[in-house]
Amino acid sequence: MSTLQNVLDSIKPVNRELKHKIQKRLDNLTKPPGSLGRLEELAGRYTTITEKECPRIRKKIIYTFAGDHGVVQEGVSAYPKEVTYQMVYNFLRGGAGINVLANHIGAEVRVVDMGVDHIFEDAKGLIKRKIGMGTRNMAVGPAMTREECIKAVEIGIELTKGAVEEGVDILGTGDMGIGNTTPSSAITAVLTGRPVAYVTGRGTGITDETYRHKMRVIDLSITVNRPDPSDPLDVLTKVGGYEIAGIAGLIIGASAHRIPVVIDGFISSAAALTAVSLKREISQYLFASHLSVEQGHQVILESIGLNPLLDLNLRLGEGTGACLGISLIEAGVKILTEMATFGDAGVSEAADL
Amino acid sequence: MSTLQNVLDSIKPVNRELKHKIQKRLDNLTKPPGSLGRLEELAGRYTTITEKECPRIRKKIIYTFAGDHGVVQEGVSAYPKEVTYQMVYNFLRGGAGINVLANHIGAEVRVVDMGVDHIFEDAKGLIKRKIGMGTRNMAVGPAMTREECIKAVEIGIELTKGAVEEGVDILGTGDMGIGNTTPSSAITAVLTGRPVAYVTGRGTGITDETYRHKMRVIDLSITVNRPDPSDPLDVLTKVGGYEIAGIAGLIIGASAHRIPVVIDGFISSAAALTAVSLKREISQYLFASHLSVEQGHQVILESIGLNPLLDLNLRLGEGTGACLGISLIEAGVKILTEMATFGDAGVSEAADL
Repeated sequence: MSTLQNVLDSIKPVNRELKHKIQKRLDNLTKPPGSLGRLEELAGRYTTITEKECPRIRKKIIYTFAGDHGVVQEGVSAYPKEVTYQMVYNFLRGGAGINVLANHIGAEVRVVDMGVDHIFEDAKGLIKRKIGMGTRNMAVGPAMTREECIKAVEIGIELTKGAVEEGVDILGTGDMGIGNTTPSSAITAVLTGRPVAYVTGRGTGITDETYRHKMRVIDLSITVNRPDPSDPLDVLTKVGGYEIAGIAGLIIGASAHRIPVVIDGFISSAAALTAVSLKREISQYLFASHLSVEQGHQVILESIGLNPLLDLNLRLGEGTGACLGISLIEAGVKILTEMATFGDAGVSEAADL
Repeated sequence: MSTLQNVLDSIKPVNRELKHKIQKRLDNLTKPPGSLGRLEELAGRYTTITEKECPRIRKKIIYTFAGDHGVVQEGVSAYPKEVTYQMVYNFLRGGAGINVLANHIGAEVRVVDMGVDHIFEDAKGLIKRKIGMGTRNMAVGPAMTREECIKAVEIGIELTKGAVEEGVDILGTGDMGIGNTTPSSAITAVLTGRPVAYVTGRGTGITDETYRHKMRVIDLSITVNRPDPSDPLDVLTKVGGYEIAGIAGLIIGASAHRIPVVIDGFISSAAALTAVSLKREISQYLFASHLSVEQGHQVILESIGLNPLLDLNLRLGEGTGACLGISLIEAGVKILTEMATFGDAGVSEAADL
């Protein structure tokens, strides 16, 4: 695990010294101090992460990691497993929610096959990094081996290296994997110590009966595998997924390269929780785009210490929420860099009332 | 008041018959039903308002209405009155928050001088409709005459007529007027029946002492003028403002023309409250972009029955929040019109789990 450990070791805290300087500039813009609220906070955070004092967000990439899950055999999802690969094709043809929202904000979507149970031909926008034809059923044993897990994380790290070379300004995470709220809830339960029922939701939409069954499957998976909460990679190995590990790697790599990462919903946040559990400073590089309907999401965000930007009852994944979050961060950065100051504009400042 | 009354009479409820048809289409897109939450709601509402089943949002205009307020003499704002006209120049030069955010979403900003205490030369982007050099001090008598108030509302209505002829797809409201949270709180108190202290905030940022003084000034204005809560135009006349009346007119005109209107923060919402009090159906044409820090805002939104899209601690006005809201509505509309269906994409639908 030398690559992973080296990258983790290289992650430094963000540059807080820039914070006051940027705040001073924000306060000198033609608006009452603080009146653009969280847009100002976003501009400040973007700057302390990137150390660019006059940033421009041009190159935006959403990496949507896809993988299948052996635990689907237990009947935990409303959709058949085939939907994972079918949706990958939909992404590649541009017909999915993520394509529409990425276009809306001027971002590129890259789909990463981490372990879909289907052989894809080469295609534009598809990054083939298959580790296996889906994870094993975590209800009967570990979802993957530790070597597979580290490999999956390192794939995510490797992708950020390429993105940095291309000059990426911001990254968004996304996921596709039928059944993947089940491992995400398992990870959340283990790493936060909360009961399974507290962090498990209905995913794509299941009946009361299937919902109760899903919680039993998660409990069983934890009992069978005994993941060690003090070893996040053990948790990811035993009750995680290939795409979740890939997202965790992207987050780790981005933090090492000082690239802001906008996390999507519950699955991406379970990956973020794993990454932050490996290295606390990573949370400083993350933006939570939205609060998902999926009930474990709030638990994760509170645990990481992130305040979501949007609350629109989204629960699709793919990176859809990340797109909307990126647009707000871009708005905040433009406020910092494009507004006139009181001096420029000849506008009087506040009296000391 | 024949023009105004005719326009009010022409406002019909939105076309709810389209709702089911659009929901069916949304449910057939390649995503779990309802999984894009409020984006789907926005698409549905846009469609029932415009009666366009396959809409595209291209032409977006923010009208930022500006006016001065006699009540500023009472010392209710942290900024000198001159800032109103100085900010109008800032808008026209493109240096203000509204310019940056309108550019971000591809919208045009038009500034309407409803009654700024300054003579402007002709300028691109400035619409000159001055009614007076600011309202009168409402702490000693009515802010305007009923004739002036109706004229201001009719100016807003007239602007929508022009926008419709240009093919506008969505409108945003904005305001500029030093002191204008004071009349907005007064309007809110009178029309909702809530105590002044409950609906009054700190505007651009004032000390505790000025805040207490501001509340006394509002109480005094209501006592002196006795606005009739059952006559919204009387309220607007006595404790309103030229720019607030203009915004109310824009909202009324847009509703008559079936154009969706995205309301900004507290000032725009006080105008919306007046419009909805004149004709209840108007609320169906409105989108609340965000929840302002200004405490009266929530009271208004609850009274009108609108659920804000964003909560980013904004309190700038100008139309800044409206821009961010428009971007989300556009995202929702694109989901409806650009995503593939299960059939198109060859993706399996949910089992009946």
